[in-house]
Amino acid sequence: MIDNEYYSEDVHGPHEYFELGDFTLEMGETLPGARLAYKTHGTLNGAKDNAILFPHMYSGTPKAMEIFVGEGRALDPGKYFIIFPGQFGNGFSSSPSNTAAPLDRGAFPKVMIGDDVRAQHRLVTEKFGISELQLVLGWSMGAEQTYESAVRYPDMVKRAAPFAGTAKTTPHDIVFVRLHEDAIKSDPAWNGGFYDEPHAVHMGLRRHAQVWSVMGATQELYKREAWRDAGYSSLEDFNRRFWEGWFVPMDPDNLLTMAWKWRHGDVSRHTDGDLAAALGRITAKTFVMPFSGDMFFPPADCAEEQKLIADSELRVIESLWGHFTMFCMTEQDRQAIDDNLRDLLAVGAEAPSPKAVDGAGRMPAAA
Amino acid sequence: MIDNEYYSEDVHGPHEYFELGDFTLEMGETLPGARLAYKTHGTLNGAKDNAILFPHMYSGTPKAMEIFVGEGRALDPGKYFIIFPGQFGNGFSSSPSNTAAPLDRGAFPKVMIGDDVRAQHRLVTEKFGISELQLVLGWSMGAEQTYESAVRYPDMVKRAAPFAGTAKTTPHDIVFVRLHEDAIKSDPAWNGGFYDEPHAVHMGLRRHAQVWSVMGATQELYKREAWRDAGYSSLEDFNRRFWEGWFVPMDPDNLLTMAWKWRHGDVSRHTDGDLAAALGRITAKTFVMPFSGDMFFPPADCAEEQKLIADSELRVIESLWGHFTMFCMTEQDRQAIDDNLRDLLAVGAEAPSPKAVDGAGRMPAAA
Repeated sequence: MIDNEYYSEDVHGPHEYFELGDFTLEMGETLPGARLAYKTHGTLNGAKDNAILFPHMYSGTPKAMEIFVGEGRALDPGKYFIIFPGQFGNGFSSSPSNTAAPLDRGAFPKVMIGDDVRAQHRLVTEKFGISELQLVLGWSMGAEQTYESAVRYPDMVKRAAPFAGTAKTTPHDIVFVRLHEDAIKSDPAWNGGFYDEPHAVHMGLRRHAQVWSVMGATQELYKREAWRDAGYSSLEDFNRRFWEGWFVPMDPDNLLTMAWKWRHGDVSRHTDGDLAAALGRITAKTFVMPFSGDMFFPPADCAEEQKLIADSELRVIESLWGHFTMFCMTEQDRQAIDDNLRDLLAVGAEAPSPKAVDGAGRMPAAA
Repeated sequence: MIDNEYYSEDVHGPHEYFELGDFTLEMGETLPGARLAYKTHGTLNGAKDNAILFPHMYSGTPKAMEIFVGEGRALDPGKYFIIFPGQFGNGFSSSPSNTAAPLDRGAFPKVMIGDDVRAQHRLVTEKFGISELQLVLGWSMGAEQTYESAVRYPDMVKRAAPFAGTAKTTPHDIVFVRLHEDAIKSDPAWNGGFYDEPHAVHMGLRRHAQVWSVMGATQELYKREAWRDAGYSSLEDFNRRFWEGWFVPMDPDNLLTMAWKWRHGDVSRHTDGDLAAALGRITAKTFVMPFSGDMFFPPADCAEEQKLIADSELRVIESLWGHFTMFCMTEQDRQAIDDNLRDLLAVGAEAPSPKAVDGAGRMPAAA
């Protein structure tokens, strides 16, 4: 077990844990005593038909999704029961940093998106007894999980909102993910994954952050110095406090577990490599929502997949923040995301009950 | 002096050398016995009014420009006298790899784009007695040199064709160039620039190539596997033989000299930081030619500069090859570049003399 204050309740708030027992992974290895860390907001109603599942992106944890939840917002905890599952490798769910030998650190098994989604399905069905999800959504690796859920459990997923992500990882994305993996591995302190002190690998983590700084936001954002609006005083300040500030506290092997998983995301493995057949299984009303200047997931790549989903719409969100639009660094980005989610949740929805509308029984909004 | 078979006539063909003597650089240091390596095609006419200057890009040498020259092509050596100057740091002109101590290797001084352009101006005027250039063109760092020439010597430059480059390096480009510089420096064998064997730094050079593989071609090229049309058999083959094959034989400090120069390109240093004023000095008929999917120099960035040039047009060239369109990996790219150059050379040109048209006195076309 790696000691890293980053993966603490002090930093990420409390989690609940769902025990998966000995969990056999898609690639064949078994993770003994596997656990899924999660958070929830709102209350599951008696009919158990107000649940939303919102898995998170690479390098994230459930906490990073809380910026989307609030009274009067699309994801209103007074109306919905919102589940944030942690993906394997995030430092709270089973991860290199929290798994005992012999599966610790560099020996942690390879995990697939399908493993996360099977674990989430067990949480949703076994723990909560839910058989219908009003919405599954997520961005980036969260979108991968969203697609996987919608393909794997079409009867369960009523609506799907994959933001800035793909159902099958594109070749360019594979090249990009390898680049940021190799940036970490280039640090001799990484030592094949067997370090004692994750922060000793800080040069690798900084180089990894540097790759993200080039690919993660638009050229236009840099030109307009739009990072100033987010509170940064110079390009160096943006680099240090935003990009390095986000990634450098993390565990290198945790990031590498998620990166490998990202790179291998592909719903067409359910259909012998036929992507159209896999996406053809989706019955959810789906809004495919790329970000205009995203260099990992260009709108054109997302549009190709959207055309293969029967009941779907392409909704491109314009922002200078590229792939990082989902950080809601501007009020406009937050609004655009909320507006689209509101539209999607309204599709096929019965009129909300007065009780939901007047907010009775609402949980406090997330900070 | 570094021994590297890459920088040989066997690989790059013969060069001529123009001796610059003790050349004081813009940043203040003096390069003793500085030299400019160059090649020419065609013959300078008696009026000395048929010259074209074609500086090269990062990591290139004059040889890389020869793919644009040929009988019946826009750059026809039967009509024009075409000069390919080598930029400082290219391994033939003064460079870390060919300069004697104490200015060798990691101690080689910082060179600016303006230094290249001043050296080229001396070559053109002192060696050849040319006072008017029909065209200055180049791509990427060649575009930087083109802009610098057109701003610095407006009376000399009649036409300008900056492809896939900017007059002032953008902040995103600065972040990108730093990333690929740091990829080289991350290799312990680089040793602050003081290695004896450049090929010992191959891991740094491979990481550098990896950065280029992510940013240098379009997402669409990877998705369509359009590298197959260029003769590569798999993604790994493309990675090894194209990206690594291009960069890994080179000298790390040579690349770093060019990268630093690229990052500091800015014609507005002539006008106290006023880019509009600097570009306002250009009198050349200018075609600004970005490539549609270029992640370093997006068309929008090039268009902003084009609007500041009086007699200019924006001509976006569509290709899957992104920044590397200029490698002419497809016949279509070669044709699009040629067609635009032909259009530009026709602007304001007198009817060519019958002698030029019937090809008399033509030099053999470049291979």
